[in-house]
Amino acid sequence: MNLQAKANLIRKWCLKATTAAGSGHPTSCLSAADMMAVLFDQYFRYDINNPLNVYNDRFVLSKGHAAPLLYTVFGMAGAYPLDELLTLRKVDSRFEGHPTPKFIYAEAATGSLGQGLSVGAGLALLSKRESLPGKNYVLLGDGELAEGQVWEAANFAAYHQLDNLVAIADINRLAQSGETMFGWDAEKYEQRFKAFGFETIMINGHDFKEVQIAFEQAFYHQGDKPLAIVAHTIKGKGISFLEDRDGWHGKALNEEELQKAMKELGEPDDTLRLNLRAPDLTRSPMHQVLELKPELSFEKDKKYATREVFGQAIAEMGHQNTDLYVLDADVKNSTFAEAFLHVFPERFVECFIAEQNMVSVAAGLSRLGKIPIVATFGAFLTRAADQIRMARVSEANIKFVGSHVGVSIGEDGPSQMGLEDIALFGALPHTVIFQPADAVSTAKLTAHMIAHQGFVYMRTLRPKTPLLYQDKETFKVGGSKLLRQSKEDQLTIVATGIAVFEALKAADHLKEEGILVRVMDCYCINPIDQDTLIKCVQETKNAILITVEDHFAHGGMGDFVTAALAEQPVQLKKMAVQEISRSGKMEELLELAGINATAIVNQVHDLIPTAVFH
Amino acid sequence: MNLQAKANLIRKWCLKATTAAGSGHPTSCLSAADMMAVLFDQYFRYDINNPLNVYNDRFVLSKGHAAPLLYTVFGMAGAYPLDELLTLRKVDSRFEGHPTPKFIYAEAATGSLGQGLSVGAGLALLSKRESLPGKNYVLLGDGELAEGQVWEAANFAAYHQLDNLVAIADINRLAQSGETMFGWDAEKYEQRFKAFGFETIMINGHDFKEVQIAFEQAFYHQGDKPLAIVAHTIKGKGISFLEDRDGWHGKALNEEELQKAMKELGEPDDTLRLNLRAPDLTRSPMHQVLELKPELSFEKDKKYATREVFGQAIAEMGHQNTDLYVLDADVKNSTFAEAFLHVFPERFVECFIAEQNMVSVAAGLSRLGKIPIVATFGAFLTRAADQIRMARVSEANIKFVGSHVGVSIGEDGPSQMGLEDIALFGALPHTVIFQPADAVSTAKLTAHMIAHQGFVYMRTLRPKTPLLYQDKETFKVGGSKLLRQSKEDQLTIVATGIAVFEALKAADHLKEEGILVRVMDCYCINPIDQDTLIKCVQETKNAILITVEDHFAHGGMGDFVTAALAEQPVQLKKMAVQEISRSGKMEELLELAGINATAIVNQVHDLIPTAVFH
Repeated sequence: MNLQAKANLIRKWCLKATTAAGSGHPTSCLSAADMMAVLFDQYFRYDINNPLNVYNDRFVLSKGHAAPLLYTVFGMAGAYPLDELLTLRKVDSRFEGHPTPKFIYAEAATGSLGQGLSVGAGLALLSKRESLPGKNYVLLGDGELAEGQVWEAANFAAYHQLDNLVAIADINRLAQSGETMFGWDAEKYEQRFKAFGFETIMINGHDFKEVQIAFEQAFYHQGDKPLAIVAHTIKGKGISFLEDRDGWHGKALNEEELQKAMKELGEPDDTLRLNLRAPDLTRSPMHQVLELKPELSFEKDKKYATREVFGQAIAEMGHQNTDLYVLDADVKNSTFAEAFLHVFPERFVECFIAEQNMVSVAAGLSRLGKIPIVATFGAFLTRAADQIRMARVSEANIKFVGSHVGVSIGEDGPSQMGLEDIALFGALPHTVIFQPADAVSTAKLTAHMIAHQGFVYMRTLRPKTPLLYQDKETFKVGGSKLLRQSKEDQLTIVATGIAVFEALKAADHLKEEGILVRVMDCYCINPIDQDTLIKCVQETKNAILITVEDHFAHGGMGDFVTAALAEQPVQLKKMAVQEISRSGKMEELLELAGINATAIVNQVHDLIPTAVFH
Repeated sequence: MNLQAKANLIRKWCLKATTAAGSGHPTSCLSAADMMAVLFDQYFRYDINNPLNVYNDRFVLSKGHAAPLLYTVFGMAGAYPLDELLTLRKVDSRFEGHPTPKFIYAEAATGSLGQGLSVGAGLALLSKRESLPGKNYVLLGDGELAEGQVWEAANFAAYHQLDNLVAIADINRLAQSGETMFGWDAEKYEQRFKAFGFETIMINGHDFKEVQIAFEQAFYHQGDKPLAIVAHTIKGKGISFLEDRDGWHGKALNEEELQKAMKELGEPDDTLRLNLRAPDLTRSPMHQVLELKPELSFEKDKKYATREVFGQAIAEMGHQNTDLYVLDADVKNSTFAEAFLHVFPERFVECFIAEQNMVSVAAGLSRLGKIPIVATFGAFLTRAADQIRMARVSEANIKFVGSHVGVSIGEDGPSQMGLEDIALFGALPHTVIFQPADAVSTAKLTAHMIAHQGFVYMRTLRPKTPLLYQDKETFKVGGSKLLRQSKEDQLTIVATGIAVFEALKAADHLKEEGILVRVMDCYCINPIDQDTLIKCVQETKNAILITVEDHFAHGGMGDFVTAALAEQPVQLKKMAVQEISRSGKMEELLELAGINATAIVNQVHDLIPTAVFH
């Protein structure tokens, strides 16, 4: 039978490639090979020359360790000679151990489990909202069905009635270190998908007739429910000494075993190909590169919460860039993302209280050229730290906005305070980090955030703050502002966010004592304004620099400053939050944390030679 | 009716306390007040004078924003005068905006949603394994049921047959920013709990008869399934102008509204009390403070993977400390946690691929004096960053072990590389961070990790490394080792983990050129060995220090070193991973990342005055 031969050719190359690499997960590929042969040979609509054609079907490999399966299937669909698969896992290969953007047919980097259904849901939501015909298939392993994110995605897909989303659950019983939670009791998974609002089909994943019926049903499936194909399969299927054997999870065959396996596969014909269907039409996503100018102006003597200005700004910018999408996890009235919802409900995505799914949905939207803004409390972005990490590996163009940062939120207490968010985003290479302190800089930096290609994180504040700038002031990636500056400055205080106002208060107080200090508003934390920092060190009477921020001491702005000045002769003092905070008034908590104006004044007194006090 | 009066007294104080505070979430308290009156007045077994009595029932408030409800219930149970509730959210109060350890009756800090069922599952697992009679009740909001972690916990509870766990789902329809996913369609939640293996009861949460029947059933419930009480409730119940009204989520009444509300409650009698049942017996958890000495010795010319030595060490130490528990998320054969499983299956907890639940289960175990070790890939600890953050707020005594750190893992590629783990743990105050580079230091530091009270994170390596130390060598929190040292040293290289071997290779190469450099093994990253660092700067010919690590540049060991030397006149150079890595051989990836011996040699050449090369 032709399908069997094609499935065996898939198996052959998964085995050969992993043996050539000397590592990998061949048995996880083999359990799904039959289903993939049917899907890609008979149902999958895809223009191999145009992976981003919005009329393509989409395939997400959630079980990323089965990467050779993905690579082989696209090779057999004509994307490249199968021989190239022998470069698997080599340093110059596009075929990495787990899918990454080097493989242009991968919809997302996977390999941290349980994220693919969310990515697929993001793609499916976009198809649905833009009335595109494509189906979105996601292959999941049974082990990863224990990840809560899968069920966040399931809820999301059912809520948004994504009937164009097809989950394929490969129930092969064996996970990495033993049997999964439910082994071959596939009904347990079916019950779960059904309870979460999916239509379900149960099949034997190695019976081509059953597999065909399932994909036929998926192909024509419509209605208000997503579909789950729950497939009973055998890990290592097709090779007698691999089938359903423990201890073979992350292991390649040696040469001798490979020869034996090849014989069992009956030496499949290398010229067999998978026949993709052509999509109905062709259209690539258009990237809108716009000069974003928010037409916002602010009243001089009024105070504004930067989180609120962010809301106003995106509601304005949504007119100028129709690729803008905004995602919320039920805090839209706190982050002020709701301002966008009111104007552009069709580009607003309510994810409810499920931050992990929200981030991976955003990765799906980004894949097709959208600019997703993910907004929640800074503290709750940590809930999706792994999804953020993987979205970064995916090179997704996501904008993150974390509100309620720092102890300045006050009475709600430590669980709601974003105090490790700069460490989280700062570790990820080339992530731009903004923290505007007033309304004007927030409006302008929101525009820069959207215009910048790549990861951006912006911190916003709960309390209202006075204006620091006039409407016409300009800002840039890598910039900063000197708010107090004279030729007589003794040292520099580098502050960000709420701490800017404490630094200014301190500077005013010190001025009365006759001590002049320079104050920098470090609104861009990464990349940091190294030139201005060095200039400050050189121009002040003492080569002393104090950093002040409402973030834990390690991994915050202070460490970016220190890194930028590592080769300078300078004395640095980092003022930041050193202990878990508590409930209380903002002023009390800033004082307890030792980052208020009084603490800064005391620090300056400690650092500059007493001589200058006269 | 007495119960109604008690429930209304609960309502009174939730309203009074939040009005006094000027903020809070009173309506979220009111929806569950009737159920709490029944539970605490009729079924809950608890010694108010001994919260840690292992025979107590346990109550976890997963919907942490209903904190005033928790505080009022324990006040009405006699823990303190109700008047003290008026200190709610004040800086010197034990009643924080969300529960924290300052409130000694809280089983865990909550307020980041969706974590309580896992904590309750941890407590229930312990009861079960130690044959204790207590019931473990968890009150969940409907909004948080969208969090995937809840379903990880549900799977876990069903798998481990925790019939002593009772989930109480408060389905009040309204979340923070609007209606929940399913509104009052409580059956949707019931279906989900049922599909995930729970026995379920659906009730009207304001009908005292139905509530009593449900808790009566819960009290006597036995078998192999956990129980979920799914309760249809009304947010703001009891106060006409709050009932089922949008826009009242995080809002306290003003004085006038409070007076109106008090009238509606019929001025409840302040002397009413909730009658806790007495637990059968009394026993507090015993803390074993042992001198942990692993009796491991290593062969001089053999190589060892530090992850494997960690496994051996805990398998040994499990004999010496019976409080030790080990938790796994299906990577026990990679982290080598399986070594513990083989000896102590009764203290091994398989969590399958659900890292979030694993961490919060560990917080539950820690609450009752156990010492949980959570072991997975360093990369996958980011999956539980929020749970780790909240466990830290809970002051839990958890030991985290992250294996497969850095690009040194090789072919599996970026999704599996722990490269932001030091940033994650380093940001959390007072978290000890170890990275042993060889077998001896791993065995010794594993002992220190267990003996240390508080958060510890230990990084382990995938590849095998040669021995650096002899069996008798000693290590300590805050220590380091100088591996190369002379009076002629030009500068110091501070390395950690796999980079230590690159630094040694570089030093040997440089020595051949006539350039002597000092090499420090920074096995304890936090707290860092500041004294030795300063000594190195002072003793080397040039005040130059290079840090080398297999971690992203921001938030790693380099930033700890820089912070420790911020006030020293020293030139610092941070060598770390600057880009997303890829698949390849370890040596190739270390080279690409610019952290191998050659890169270090080049860096030294760049930094020291050419004069010394002669």
